Amino acid sequence: MKLELPSSSSTAEDQHTSYTDLLIVGAGPAGLTVAAWASRYGLKARIIDDKETQVHEGRADGLHPRTIEILDSFGIATPILKYGASIREICSWNPSDDDDSRIERTQRIRDMEMDLSRFAQGAIKQGYIEGAFLDLLKDEGVLQVERNVVTESISHDDLQERKHGEYAITLNVAYRNKSGSSDTDVRRERIHAKYLVGADGAHSWVRKHCGFELNKNRTQKHFGVIDIVPRTNFPDVRVSCVIHSARHGSIMTLPREGRLIRCYVQLAETGGEEDTFDDKEVSFEDIISKAQKIFSPYKLESGECEWWSVYTVDHQIAKTNSLHNRIFITGDAVHAHTPTMGAGMNVSIQDSYNLGWKLAMVIKGLAKPELLDTYRDERHKVAETLLDLDQEMSQFFVQGPCDNSKNYDEFRKKFTPFLSGTGVIYGPSMIRAEDDNDEQVNGDSGSPAKSGRSKFRSTKSLARNILTGQRLNSHIVVNQADASPRHIHDFMKSTGPWRIFIFAGDLTIAGQRKRLEAIAGHFSDPKSIVCRHLKPNEPEEAAVEILTIHSAPRVEIELLDLPEVLHPFHEKLGYDYWKVFASEASAKEREGDSEDAYSRFGIDSQHGCVVICRPDQHVSLVCDMEDVDMIDEFFEQVLVSS
Amino acid sequence: MKLELPSSSSTAEDQHTSYTDLLIVGAGPAGLTVAAWASRYGLKARIIDDKETQVHEGRADGLHPRTIEILDSFGIATPILKYGASIREICSWNPSDDDDSRIERTQRIRDMEMDLSRFAQGAIKQGYIEGAFLDLLKDEGVLQVERNVVTESISHDDLQERKHGEYAITLNVAYRNKSGSSDTDVRRERIHAKYLVGADGAHSWVRKHCGFELNKNRTQKHFGVIDIVPRTNFPDVRVSCVIHSARHGSIMTLPREGRLIRCYVQLAETGGEEDTFDDKEVSFEDIISKAQKIFSPYKLESGECEWWSVYTVDHQIAKTNSLHNRIFITGDAVHAHTPTMGAGMNVSIQDSYNLGWKLAMVIKGLAKPELLDTYRDERHKVAETLLDLDQEMSQFFVQGPCDNSKNYDEFRKKFTPFLSGTGVIYGPSMIRAEDDNDEQVNGDSGSPAKSGRSKFRSTKSLARNILTGQRLNSHIVVNQADASPRHIHDFMKSTGPWRIFIFAGDLTIAGQRKRLEAIAGHFSDPKSIVCRHLKPNEPEEAAVEILTIHSAPRVEIELLDLPEVLHPFHEKLGYDYWKVFASEASAKEREGDSEDAYSRFGIDSQHGCVVICRPDQHVSLVCDMEDVDMIDEFFEQVLVSS
Ligand SMILES: Cc1cc2nc3c(=O)[nH]c(=O)nc-3n(C[C@H](O)[C@H](O)[C@H](O)COP(=O)(O)OP(=O)(O)OC[C@H]3O[C@@H](n4cnc5c(N)ncnc54)[C@H](O)[C@@H]3O)c2cc1C
Ligand SMILES: Cc1cc2nc3c(=O)[nH]c(=O)nc-3n(C[C@H](O)[C@H](O)[C@H](O)COP(=O)(O)OP(=O)(O)OC[C@H]3O[C@@H](n4cnc5c(N)ncnc54)[C@H](O)[C@@H]3O)c2cc1C
Repeated sequence: MKLELPSSSSTAEDQHTSYTDLLIVGAGPAGLTVAAWASRYGLKARIIDDKETQVHEGRADGLHPRTIEILDSFGIATPILKYGASIREICSWNPSDDDDSRIERTQRIRDMEMDLSRFAQGAIKQGYIEGAFLDLLKDEGVLQVERNVVTESISHDDLQERKHGEYAITLNVAYRNKSGSSDTDVRRERIHAKYLVGADGAHSWVRKHCGFELNKNRTQKHFGVIDIVPRTNFPDVRVSCVIHSARHGSIMTLPREGRLIRCYVQLAETGGEEDTFDDKEVSFEDIISKAQKIFSPYKLESGECEWWSVYTVDHQIAKTNSLHNRIFITGDAVHAHTPTMGAGMNVSIQDSYNLGWKLAMVIKGLAKPELLDTYRDERHKVAETLLDLDQEMSQFFVQGPCDNSKNYDEFRKKFTPFLSGTGVIYGPSMIRAEDDNDEQVNGDSGSPAKSGRSKFRSTKSLARNILTGQRLNSHIVVNQADASPRHIHDFMKSTGPWRIFIFAGDLTIAGQRKRLEAIAGHFSDPKSIVCRHLKPNEPEEAAVEILTIHSAPRVEIELLDLPEVLHPFHEKLGYDYWKVFASEASAKEREGDSEDAYSRFGIDSQHGCVVICRPDQHVSLVCDMEDVDMIDEFFEQVLVSS
Repeated sequence: MKLELPSSSSTAEDQHTSYTDLLIVGAGPAGLTVAAWASRYGLKARIIDDKETQVHEGRADGLHPRTIEILDSFGIATPILKYGASIREICSWNPSDDDDSRIERTQRIRDMEMDLSRFAQGAIKQGYIEGAFLDLLKDEGVLQVERNVVTESISHDDLQERKHGEYAITLNVAYRNKSGSSDTDVRRERIHAKYLVGADGAHSWVRKHCGFELNKNRTQKHFGVIDIVPRTNFPDVRVSCVIHSARHGSIMTLPREGRLIRCYVQLAETGGEEDTFDDKEVSFEDIISKAQKIFSPYKLESGECEWWSVYTVDHQIAKTNSLHNRIFITGDAVHAHTPTMGAGMNVSIQDSYNLGWKLAMVIKGLAKPELLDTYRDERHKVAETLLDLDQEMSQFFVQGPCDNSKNYDEFRKKFTPFLSGTGVIYGPSMIRAEDDNDEQVNGDSGSPAKSGRSKFRSTKSLARNILTGQRLNSHIVVNQADASPRHIHDFMKSTGPWRIFIFAGDLTIAGQRKRLEAIAGHFSDPKSIVCRHLKPNEPEEAAVEILTIHSAPRVEIELLDLPEVLHPFHEKLGYDYWKVFASEASAKEREGDSEDAYSRFGIDSQHGCVVICRPDQHVSLVCDMEDVDMIDEFFEQVLVSS
């Protein structure tokens, strides 16, 4: 592809040239998630946006449990959980059998996503999510969003031939004029980048100008979306509802932060020859009066309207999300669909959560560039699933009362793994071993398994409830040194390294002790690639971290009797006391968990096993403590030897 | 008392005169807690401090569970819990029987305070606590700390005769010069105040200048205090330890934020004629080398020292904490003692937490001035208990290895209610009914019962596990409207009102429904003082709030079928969905709590009861749903009728 002409002419004088390893275009939820990873790994990276400010009101608001886990992994979930609404119940409403001009509650469904994560679904406006990421970037000081930056042209020659260290991409940008200043003031910049991420939304400029192809449906769907403080005698206003009326269409409601609720009112579907629907002709009053008809016999008034919009959606998916592992698109740039599953922002964040650490590891020279293939495969499959499920859910939403609306709990089960985000299982690849389970879960909505092959195979029987490819769930264990109960996810934060979990079993048994000493001995030897990546004196540079969870009573074990590689000594700061844990009864008593981590994961409490997790918490491989050569081989395949 | 002459002369010109309802002198933990209440009630109040900045390093660090509950009630516990250490275990160490030059672990004790609160003990430097309060004041924008303000003189004429609305106190202050500027620049101010709080620490200027008398011990105790990152092979460095050596004295250690630990090293006790101990001659090296001898055979090195100090303590207590209910002292100004119980900052915050809301309610004209008597009685009793226990604990600490140090778990039990802060039980008074329990708990360290009398008596059998006078413990219940599990303390925040908890029992039983309708009917009638203080359209002005917890399965109850006074309607914002809760099984399943709130509180799940709680969460009265006249009478006694 050739350099495009800048959209307005520019002279050499006002051109500034600069270089960056990673350039992110777009600072919505998707772009900000990549930026958060870049910040964590300390990359030389930039993030630009053509808008003047972040989103403040409205737009996306549903938060799937996995998204909250991701926010938590970056340490930014707390304000979201504090201000956001928590969704614990979903009610379906249908026309009454006696009088179909009246709706009545047909089901109260306990939110099932909750069993899949320690977080329940939530809802809060997009502005808070963007704000939380922006705070993170500000606090860490590595990169900040540059605003009012307009992309003018891009070139990326011979990507396939050029080495990964080269600045193979050139983006020309202009800094938007303050209104009133003349065109000659326009400052322009030529940015040379090694990698570029297009996180620039549904109408992605990057997608268009880099030639990503799109599969697009002819039809468009139009929703009236309102964020109001309701004055109503409708009883289910603080839970989520799916309401089908007999003659006026349907509505979906969500409780929101403060006293707000969000309503999605289905307005029209267009795409046919003679369709004449015009968004601009729809007023707030039109939307609320349609809502009022659906709510009958209940009254609905808006005490306050914070935001409203007519949201028109194309149904589209990019054919790929990667151009030679140098230019990527993520989020809405890849997939557009209805808001009926509340998936847009969630899947966008999850796309970028998958991409960001891989890019960072490659850029830092820690991982091999082929790692980036897995972004393409893993997230394209998710995008396909998303579009399929959205077809079905939006159809259900527009078709009027039906068997599915009356048996909504049954209908919805199909969507649960996907809607939680935790049901997503990546398929076999260079960073994900095969698993006996792959055959069974294939076809399930949450499980894009068997998309590739792997040299390795997890030993299923060692951890019966852990699915290779899925993110490791969090349970409570007890810190060996300080006796405090801790969620496993609390020490799997998005700080960069892979984690080798040694489930060491019962260390009061001499044989188990020996097995642990053997594996620890292996990882203490610089011949092992794991050892070379541990960096006890520069833990922030480590590509791998070892965490031990044993099943003996905590008080029968002395931390300092365990091999030092499990609690590494730092020259200045002494031992690391935050890497060994007990999976014991006291954790249960204290936090009310009825099972310990071993039984939750289906791991034999005497024998234990090893579980390798990626920086994004997904499980790569389950094996035995003796499988140290396999572990080395696994890491040799991904990591640069150093 | 007459106006004292200002310490330096001042002319009329540089005198500025101002008026305030409440003047707080001292912005340590005690002063800031009063200020937080003032902020919450929107008082016309000021807080001054003669220092240039807040405390940054060192000083107090232990956090008792009740203190964390208080911070949480102000919405500022989250950062403290995030950065602070959590203390889950206490180990005692004594000389080995075989070789008394070596210490060995004699006991590992699970921290018992934990059973008494949902929070465990914590430890974090005082600066974080002050910082959290300062952030609160900044966010709320009602009052800010004024620094570099020096108190010069105070007058308070005829306090006894003057009405509570008058500015009976005058404080003359000077604004400290920037170094280098001349004395003529000094700006002075004459502040007239209705109420004054001396929260100005152990050497309190207010105490001295207002003539509060002091009981003081002749002896002083001297501790070496160090905050270090340890490099050590001592195994219990991340839990709390009490270490008695055979010949080198004792040490107390606490884990702290980050990698820090705090050590208290006992240095000397002085007060005799020929004692010559001089703090200024003690160096950090002296302290650590003494610590190293005690730790033998373990090595202890300081990787980094953040702060160290020689802390010299008087054992003293003010004879009263109140002057005619106009001038109060709180915190270290009232009591000074050793750091062996880590009580200083905790009891100081708890003093002020008791005082602040009472002052605010009186100043706002919501409550009668006699309410302030209860501060005097309740907190003076606590100060006495504190001093007694401290005598015993500090004696234990200096006396060397003994039976108590070997059976530390037994010895420590005595201190547990007090050390948790939750064991404190205020005695009968105008705001605390008598209780069958009073006789039994009298004499218990945490229970200053029987200090006064009350017209009312709690019906013990209605809530067998609730102690009148103690703060109501928190359990999880489920919000009726949004199905989310909530801690009771989450809706008992420090926002101002008294809370009437209606434990409505099983509302699927028609008779219970009737009983609930009767009490709700009573509170809906403006003849009831409760009704007049509810203010559904100005909830921030309410002096009383009604909260309902029923025991029926949540899904069998419709919120809007319950009397409106239980979910009041706001003209603009609709119903209040955050006042009715179910105490049901799903809360247990979800959060792992093994009992529901009714059984935890010992309340009959059919019949229910009423529990009245003060704005500081302490229980005033337990009675039946029919005792509405008693409830009105109770409030008539405290609240201004309006
Ligand atoms: C008007 C509107 C209403 C919506 N309503 C809902 C809703 O009701 N419910 C729901 O679930 N979802 C809704 N969404 C979708 C939801 O906001 C997205 O799914 C989510 O934000 C996806 O995140 P993203 O980061 O991929 O894209 P976006 O959030 O769209 O972020 C893209 C960013 O890129 C910037 N950008 C675009 N082009 C360029 C360029 N050339 N150069 C530099 N920067 C560029 C944009 O300014 C923007 O900040 C709505 C979206 C819009 C636009
Ligand atoms: C040097 C030192 C070391 C300590 N070390 C420990 C320790 O190791 N462990 C422990 O548990 N506790 C320690 N403490 C005690 C602990 O800090 C206190 O118990 C706690 O801070 C009590 O809070 P307070 O608000 O009552 O008093 P303080 O925190 O003392 O606050 C009093 C405030 O009033 C201000 N003030 C004083 N006089 C005036 C005046 N005339 N006008 C205006 N402002 C005034 C002061 O500047 C100060 O900000 C230490 C205290 C000190 C002073």
